[in-house]
Amino acid sequence: MKIPGQNRAVVRDVWPTVENGKYAIKRVVGESVSVWFNVLSDGHDVVRGGLRYRHESERKWSHASATSIGNDRWQAIFKVEKQGTYTYEALGWVDYALTWQHGITKKIDAGLDVKVELLEGLPFIEKLPKTISKEEKKLQAKCATAFASAAEYEEGKMLAKSEHLHNLFISHPDMTYLNTNITPLRVYVDREKAAFSTWYEFFPRSAAAKAGQHGTLQDCIKLLPRVASMGFDTLYFPPIHPIGEIHRKGKNNATTASEGDVGSCWAIGSKDGGHTAIHPQLGTIQDFKQLVDAASKLGIEIAMDFALQFAPDHPWVKENPQWLKQRPDGTIQYAENPPKKYQDIYPVYFETSDWKNLWKALLDIALYWLEQGIRVFRVDNPHTKPIAFWEWMIAEVKKKNNDVIFLSEAFTTPNLMQELAMAGFTQSYSYYTWRNTKAELLEYMNQLTQGILSETFRPNFWPNTPDILPWSLQNADEHNYLTRYFLAATLSSNVGVYGPVYEFLEHRAMPGKEEYLDSEKYEVRHWDWKKATPVTELYTKLNKARKEHAALQRTNNIRFCHIENDQLVAYLKQDEQGSKVLCVCSLDAVHSQSGMLHLAPWMLGMNEHATYTLKDVLTSSEFEWHGHTHFIKLTPQQPYHLFVIKEKVD
Amino acid sequence: MKIPGQNRAVVRDVWPTVENGKYAIKRVVGESVSVWFNVLSDGHDVVRGGLRYRHESERKWSHASATSIGNDRWQAIFKVEKQGTYTYEALGWVDYALTWQHGITKKIDAGLDVKVELLEGLPFIEKLPKTISKEEKKLQAKCATAFASAAEYEEGKMLAKSEHLHNLFISHPDMTYLNTNITPLRVYVDREKAAFSTWYEFFPRSAAAKAGQHGTLQDCIKLLPRVASMGFDTLYFPPIHPIGEIHRKGKNNATTASEGDVGSCWAIGSKDGGHTAIHPQLGTIQDFKQLVDAASKLGIEIAMDFALQFAPDHPWVKENPQWLKQRPDGTIQYAENPPKKYQDIYPVYFETSDWKNLWKALLDIALYWLEQGIRVFRVDNPHTKPIAFWEWMIAEVKKKNNDVIFLSEAFTTPNLMQELAMAGFTQSYSYYTWRNTKAELLEYMNQLTQGILSETFRPNFWPNTPDILPWSLQNADEHNYLTRYFLAATLSSNVGVYGPVYEFLEHRAMPGKEEYLDSEKYEVRHWDWKKATPVTELYTKLNKARKEHAALQRTNNIRFCHIENDQLVAYLKQDEQGSKVLCVCSLDAVHSQSGMLHLAPWMLGMNEHATYTLKDVLTSSEFEWHGHTHFIKLTPQQPYHLFVIKEKVD
Repeated sequence: MKIPGQNRAVVRDVWPTVENGKYAIKRVVGESVSVWFNVLSDGHDVVRGGLRYRHESERKWSHASATSIGNDRWQAIFKVEKQGTYTYEALGWVDYALTWQHGITKKIDAGLDVKVELLEGLPFIEKLPKTISKEEKKLQAKCATAFASAAEYEEGKMLAKSEHLHNLFISHPDMTYLNTNITPLRVYVDREKAAFSTWYEFFPRSAAAKAGQHGTLQDCIKLLPRVASMGFDTLYFPPIHPIGEIHRKGKNNATTASEGDVGSCWAIGSKDGGHTAIHPQLGTIQDFKQLVDAASKLGIEIAMDFALQFAPDHPWVKENPQWLKQRPDGTIQYAENPPKKYQDIYPVYFETSDWKNLWKALLDIALYWLEQGIRVFRVDNPHTKPIAFWEWMIAEVKKKNNDVIFLSEAFTTPNLMQELAMAGFTQSYSYYTWRNTKAELLEYMNQLTQGILSETFRPNFWPNTPDILPWSLQNADEHNYLTRYFLAATLSSNVGVYGPVYEFLEHRAMPGKEEYLDSEKYEVRHWDWKKATPVTELYTKLNKARKEHAALQRTNNIRFCHIENDQLVAYLKQDEQGSKVLCVCSLDAVHSQSGMLHLAPWMLGMNEHATYTLKDVLTSSEFEWHGHTHFIKLTPQQPYHLFVIKEKVD
Repeated sequence: MKIPGQNRAVVRDVWPTVENGKYAIKRVVGESVSVWFNVLSDGHDVVRGGLRYRHESERKWSHASATSIGNDRWQAIFKVEKQGTYTYEALGWVDYALTWQHGITKKIDAGLDVKVELLEGLPFIEKLPKTISKEEKKLQAKCATAFASAAEYEEGKMLAKSEHLHNLFISHPDMTYLNTNITPLRVYVDREKAAFSTWYEFFPRSAAAKAGQHGTLQDCIKLLPRVASMGFDTLYFPPIHPIGEIHRKGKNNATTASEGDVGSCWAIGSKDGGHTAIHPQLGTIQDFKQLVDAASKLGIEIAMDFALQFAPDHPWVKENPQWLKQRPDGTIQYAENPPKKYQDIYPVYFETSDWKNLWKALLDIALYWLEQGIRVFRVDNPHTKPIAFWEWMIAEVKKKNNDVIFLSEAFTTPNLMQELAMAGFTQSYSYYTWRNTKAELLEYMNQLTQGILSETFRPNFWPNTPDILPWSLQNADEHNYLTRYFLAATLSSNVGVYGPVYEFLEHRAMPGKEEYLDSEKYEVRHWDWKKATPVTELYTKLNKARKEHAALQRTNNIRFCHIENDQLVAYLKQDEQGSKVLCVCSLDAVHSQSGMLHLAPWMLGMNEHATYTLKDVLTSSEFEWHGHTHFIKLTPQQPYHLFVIKEKVD
């Protein structure tokens, strides 16, 4: 007998719910949360659904109304206005006042005597809260008199049935006996950038203007205007810490380094310091702060690589040997994927009994960079460190500053990628890199934007990374580079590119591997930073369009259109404020492709006979459409349209 | 930092889970529970899944092994042997011993030196529990020596890779760091009858041998052999309590009773007593006990109607006025569905502030009949009483005696019917009564036997009830009565029929309603209990077949076969012990129907070239089949086959 016997409604089957309420769904400031749930009760009484929510900083609940959508199901929508965690609960109750009104109305309509029923209505009138409006108080007083008075019987009947009284009961329900869903549900609210960001990656050591020189952070500062002019808002650097000298890798991942080889920057730590130090050849912490400031002035945030592994000469190897796996022969366990060995790095030994101090030390690395102004971390291989560690660490960092964004670089199984997202990662690398055909793209987008992934997993689409030169881009021509960035940046609101290599069409691979030949991972490369290619131009125009058109700033708002050609993909993106974009792209690098595109005006929120203009913001060409089907032709020279749609009003 | 940092596996997406673990799934003694779940961990280590379970009477967990079925998913199966509640938890852990073996095997195969790796294996050997077998201890000792000895290096390598060592690690996992699913999950285990029962219903007041007489419980005793000979194991009586005299209903639901009218037996209570009394015209409590005993000797249980409502002259109306809704004019609220009124009954006022005493008094009614030997309750309209009340009451009754079975007579929305089942009802009336076409039957069976309903909702199929003479049986002929019982009793393992009316082909309806004309609900009827019809014969043969063939004793074990005719339905039922039944039924009462039935031998667990016999246990005709397609012809005279299948072994 845990709940009062009078408490007759139950709330069931709430969507979204992530692992029984263990995890939060995700939103950014200003977005809405839609919650669906069943409300059931015994008998024929009128039941109602509602929703209450509050930000972690608030004690009082706010209430959102819910709408019945049939078959016992209700939908409630609320807006999240602040960063941090909101709790929300779906509500259900039996509405005795509405039940009374429903019953008396039927009896009045059937011509029955309802004098006693009117008296039975009095308590509902009396129970209305004191806070009701003046107008409402007038109605309350009228009902109170008429229901109790034989002389005002006809007036009483009219009032009892009235829409006004109905609205009064709807607006001020008596929720004395209320039930909620079983588990408390949460939504974690990030800043806007979590949902909409445009990333550029380059290696600082390749930033020098002159060939043969090792780049510096000061060189990077000089490149910032170039990055800004291309429209990127996040600049991600591979690790900038001292690089191990013991077992350093040579060019093209050679096991032994030659004289002058710079090593892999992911082999972190040397006599010059560990994860909180700057590689001496790049500069100093002062240079770094100067870089962060200069970037900030151009609207760019620096994303820090957070790579938890140690070169053999990392200071912690001697200071905290218990954080590395000691072998019976006195050596330390290096990274391996048997029989492959990675002798230039030691993995963190998370099974250590000293794990609490280890976790704190790793957190301190993040907090140190937080103090240096870093608000974005790209986390290297999070799927090889315990999920529980990330859940704890991300929460701790967010307690200090909830602006911080964590991008998960986990290319692993779908379940594990999702688990990391649920554990707290703000954004995640995705399989986009290997989704090429129309069928693959549609299936993947449907997976991401429907069901639980759409609530918890924010994909970031990268056509390439320093670790991945996908088969589709090997020995490819310009068309592929253009369309792969076009698709990434229009399908997904979070997009990133390992930039110079991509815009300068570097496509030489290690034979038989999806790895770059002469990769910057193991050597300094020189780029002609003054050069602009068609890819540079696309970056610039497309990133500008993404900033100007809100429809491109979300991922879940996609709707694919039917187009009668398997080499053509077409999709709409729309936002609630009326931004409408239609993207059409050809996947064929060699031939022209054409087909009929089906687009019903109602899909654009327009009436059947509407006429609208389509302006291609990449080429400035304009079209005018009406009706349902439209001819599209794309060529290798003009492989896509990014149409901004405006209804024509005469 | 709630869980140890070393605890790296997570368990997710457990199936079945009912409302986040709030409710139990259902089984009967001897059945299996299949649990599916994901086990994830970081990195490349070997993870394993398992399951532990225990009966409420046990403190120690039993363990069930789990099998990896790919994509991080595991399946575990355990058997429930006792009535009552079992708790089960899905388990996941990183298996360090198997990870070690996996790694060293790859290195040995690649020709690498593994002397240190062998030393690293020693702790896994040493940690094995003391309870391992003699044979296993020998292997343990061999490994302990060989792994540590340079002289036995080759032997050590062989042992390290060996299947024997693999099996030893598999059998005795180190589960120091274990994770489980988030919410505790439960299965409630009933006695066999919950899953397999055959119900017959008649009105005791129509039990007299002579026309014009009011039947008695002693008359009922005389009818028991007839019920037993037809193969029914549960005899359900509408309420046998004193019937209200105030506002008593007349024949055919007339508002005013005439002299001699017996009233509706659901209008419970009069000067002669309430829910714990016997209607004087039926007999005494001694007669009732004699009836229960006599039935028991014939393998029949008496099912009691549990109908919570009061006639105006029910003793409680005066004794406990607070349990009824008092109106402002001093009258009591009768039952209504505005503008309809049911003036012969008062509903229970569950909103009363005295609800705790009310709940206890209602429970006491059930406990009283429990003491009189009743173990089966058919609950009248449970969907008009609070769900929380049933959840509490059923649990309380089961604490006294977990043999008790509750059948929910809720013909309401799918969600509410499911909710009542989850709250504790053992069985539920179903929509079968209105599922007639092939498409309707397939869709409904799929709903019931797949997904969450198959775990929580045990349907009981009734072709008719005293409240429902479905359109399909109105003015229908014998064929419809035969096929509707045939389908009910072969599709569902729980079946019931409002018997005499059905076997004597009563099909006169109140005009425009699905109600019987001259219904026994409002008058005494006379039946020729000596008569046997083709329906009587079907009851007898089919109920016998249900007892003899285990495949017919479950509902979820159904698999429909494709048959090329929309008027023919065909389905297989099989159990794990090899009972195999094929049912084929024609829905056409007028024409012969034929079509090709597709039945691959693998669906019967037989090889491609198997030959098998099909014996129709209703007609004794026999067939021999092999191959994939079979010609079926059914006629209005021979509208179904109930084939028992046996493989022919030469």
